[in-house]
Amino acid sequence: MDLNSDLGESFGAWAMGDDAAMLDIVTSANVACGFHAGDPAGILRTLERAAERGVAVGAHVGYRDLAGFGRRNMDVSSEDLTAEVIYQIGALDALARVAGTRVSYVKPHGALYNTIAHDARQGQAVIAALKALGGDLVLMALAGSPLVARARAQGLSVVGEAFADRAYTPEGTLVSRKEAGAVLHDPAHVAQRMRRFAREGVIEAIDGSLVTLDAGSICVHGDSPDAVAMARCIRDLLAADGVALGAFARAGA
Amino acid sequence: MDLNSDLGESFGAWAMGDDAAMLDIVTSANVACGFHAGDPAGILRTLERAAERGVAVGAHVGYRDLAGFGRRNMDVSSEDLTAEVIYQIGALDALARVAGTRVSYVKPHGALYNTIAHDARQGQAVIAALKALGGDLVLMALAGSPLVARARAQGLSVVGEAFADRAYTPEGTLVSRKEAGAVLHDPAHVAQRMRRFAREGVIEAIDGSLVTLDAGSICVHGDSPDAVAMARCIRDLLAADGVALGAFARAGA
Amino acid sequence: MDLNSDLGESFGAWAMGDDAAMLDIVTSANVACGFHAGDPAGILRTLERAAERGVAVGAHVGYRDLAGFGRRNMDVSSEDLTAEVIYQIGALDALARVAGTRVSYVKPHGALYNTIAHDARQGQAVIAALKALGGDLVLMALAGSPLVARARAQGLSVVGEAFADRAYTPEGTLVSRKEAGAVLHDPAHVAQRMRRFAREGVIEAIDGSLVTLDAGSICVHGDSPDAVAMARCIRDLLAADGVALGAFARAGA
Amino acid sequence: MDLNSDLGESFGAWAMGDDAAMLDIVTSANVACGFHAGDPAGILRTLERAAERGVAVGAHVGYRDLAGFGRRNMDVSSEDLTAEVIYQIGALDALARVAGTRVSYVKPHGALYNTIAHDARQGQAVIAALKALGGDLVLMALAGSPLVARARAQGLSVVGEAFADRAYTPEGTLVSRKEAGAVLHDPAHVAQRMRRFAREGVIEAIDGSLVTLDAGSICVHGDSPDAVAMARCIRDLLAADGVALGAFARAGA
Repeated sequence: MDLNSDLGESFGAWAMGDDAAMLDIVTSANVACGFHAGDPAGILRTLERAAERGVAVGAHVGYRDLAGFGRRNMDVSSEDLTAEVIYQIGALDALARVAGTRVSYVKPHGALYNTIAHDARQGQAVIAALKALGGDLVLMALAGSPLVARARAQGLSVVGEAFADRAYTPEGTLVSRKEAGAVLHDPAHVAQRMRRFAREGVIEAIDGSLVTLDAGSICVHGDSPDAVAMARCIRDLLAADGVALGAFARAGA
Repeated sequence: MDLNSDLGESFGAWAMGDDAAMLDIVTSANVACGFHAGDPAGILRTLERAAERGVAVGAHVGYRDLAGFGRRNMDVSSEDLTAEVIYQIGALDALARVAGTRVSYVKPHGALYNTIAHDARQGQAVIAALKALGGDLVLMALAGSPLVARARAQGLSVVGEAFADRAYTPEGTLVSRKEAGAVLHDPAHVAQRMRRFAREGVIEAIDGSLVTLDAGSICVHGDSPDAVAMARCIRDLLAADGVALGAFARAGA
Repeated sequence: MDLNSDLGESFGAWAMGDDAAMLDIVTSANVACGFHAGDPAGILRTLERAAERGVAVGAHVGYRDLAGFGRRNMDVSSEDLTAEVIYQIGALDALARVAGTRVSYVKPHGALYNTIAHDARQGQAVIAALKALGGDLVLMALAGSPLVARARAQGLSVVGEAFADRAYTPEGTLVSRKEAGAVLHDPAHVAQRMRRFAREGVIEAIDGSLVTLDAGSICVHGDSPDAVAMARCIRDLLAADGVALGAFARAGA
Repeated sequence: MDLNSDLGESFGAWAMGDDAAMLDIVTSANVACGFHAGDPAGILRTLERAAERGVAVGAHVGYRDLAGFGRRNMDVSSEDLTAEVIYQIGALDALARVAGTRVSYVKPHGALYNTIAHDARQGQAVIAALKALGGDLVLMALAGSPLVARARAQGLSVVGEAFADRAYTPEGTLVSRKEAGAVLHDPAHVAQRMRRFAREGVIEAIDGSLVTLDAGSICVHGDSPDAVAMARCIRDLLAADGVALGAFARAGA
């Protein structure tokens, strides 16, 4: 099983997250590319540590929106979006090569991630970017979302993603953050859910039913000390349980 | 002889220059990388046309200063500058690959270009970026500047650059723009100077003496209709005179 | 009758429009505030000329999106949007005071303009900004849009706006740009439409019916030589016809 | 005696400093204006709290350099710099008015602060901005720097500033950060230095001599828990010693 987290999200004088701690926990690092977060020197430092730890690197591409941290929906044209995704992947991959690794997958960030899970036009713009670059990069997408099938139908490798600290509907979609119980806070509970998912491929939905998720990676957060602690708890429980942890994509592939 | 020009400098709704016209004139295109100018989709269009025309592509890396168009000196730390240059080259090269070509050289832009011609610290930061990327990219630099020797001493390939429309001192440096006669405006006169330079390697300095320039490329401008006309005049006179025009770097190398 | 146009939209090295020409034509200038376009020094030059010509100044507030020129829908939170509108108005008004005039109205730009014409949440965020600043600034809005009534119901002065070069539906809304005939190109035809509107308050809709518009200002464009010519044609025809031209808001009020 | 600190320096998702804590300590708040740090909604929240606490508000104007946090020297033209300072002051003052206060002084930030302490050209550009706005705003500047005399000679009110945690030369200038002992870390020691300065107007220089500082405000930092603790220590010691604390400029003047 793969554990991924969003890293490299500091920007200039502003720090975010504890990349060093998280790179001892995760097996895949979604590294910011400068559009929603990340400055080149800070990104490079995170990539160097990822290379040292043998953690796989993904391009965490986002909307061009530093002020909104890429969390605001933007109606970007397909031409712009495709070119912006290529630009970000290329920039990150050059830094990755200098750090002794490579970009092996692409995980869209924030509002872009949520939008393309369902929006066919913007999703196609991202797919077009990956195909234009040769189609070797794996796309990480919301497990069960229409994007997964859409990208696979066009020949891309796609890995579905489960969210450790989120509740699921019986249909296998995320419970909206606007609803009570959408976000889980108890590390032990979350870790046990992920252990079951890693072993059986199922998660208990919010109504108590079991839902099967087509996910090859588990997303954990690292943007607060509590989040880091929860991520470590998940890793420890999986490891204690004999679940093999490793990147779905070859580190530095 | 190689003719180069700065292209891809439009940004979003703002147009600059006539890239299509210039790509019929020059043999090397210094393409903006998004820090001083250029948005990904516009850059990609310029790269596609450059690929069609067989024009070599250089990364026109600059300071992160859209508001100042990269023309203002900035005291960027070496760590930041090295990472920013790598980032820009990688971003442009990804777009270039999608367009069917590659980045084959690097020409710093504006204030960065002028600063590193003499400033050892920032110059070293740029050299470090090229070395970190493997050292295969050619550095285009001001002919006769300390940067040329500094970069060559570290194993980089460097091509010196002459400016078609600028007056030179007897020592082979540019006459400051603050002095009268620093910028030349007569296309025929400029073209004849460049013809002589292409054939004999010398330029007449502002005092009438002849100065030898170690330059493998001539920079022409394209940011106004007059500039495009002057560039075309230079190309036509060189071609009529039997000077072979071609990129110093292999297009799409 | 008032003629307004979007000005101050250059940015650093990138020019847009012919502000000097337009300031001899219009009676109200919608001046960019730096979020979608406009740098402080360029804005100040436009304001100085507006003050000289006695042209009223409006704050052309937009989304924080230079790369998209404020033309892309963005899902900005109400708290952010209200504060951003206040920020932009304050910045422009300080420059206006230095130029010897004042901001007397506010016209949202591009995607923000279109969004708040109908979207109650974002519209309320803009209304809140104007009310927070004391409610003295006039809001310029799409004639006939829900925003007009919404803002008036909260005590704001609102001036509706007609678009000179756009076709109208029989209901008094703009024909979508996606439909044929949405944009009018013949200066004489456009000028005659505006003359009739200025005299009778009606515009011929795309189906030939007459529609009454609650508009106190006519928007003309100046972003190309053809646009400037059309604007001048409209002004000349109105003036020749005895229509009194003047800002709806007091210049420098 | 006045205590000032840099506040409002968060940006979007990135937090910096503990503004709430510092607004219980200082009497003057240098609030970021969006060019080196600060987003409008975050700035507004800081201003609202400053207004509640009766803390005076200064415009902490900076270079347009979010990536560098305004700490990098930039060779900005005088025309641009003057307009940018006006823009920032106006933006902040509009937000301040909405928050129930006003901008009463201007403290340049970071590299701009250091540059104009000595550089006559850029200093004059800032002075020109304050004069253009009417000359009522007080300029806060490095005590003993040439800027102080230069601005006063042109009729501006200037308040000199002492730095609590910095060592001074016998000439009354700051010991360079590159030298050992330039920055003081012991809260009790720093507080005692500031008590003596508040009572006698002198500070012990690095060589043990006493130097008189023409300073009406003391700068304390709040960008870390330790910095907040030191600031509180200074305030407490001054208060315990009967030093009257209050803004040099009228809050909300």
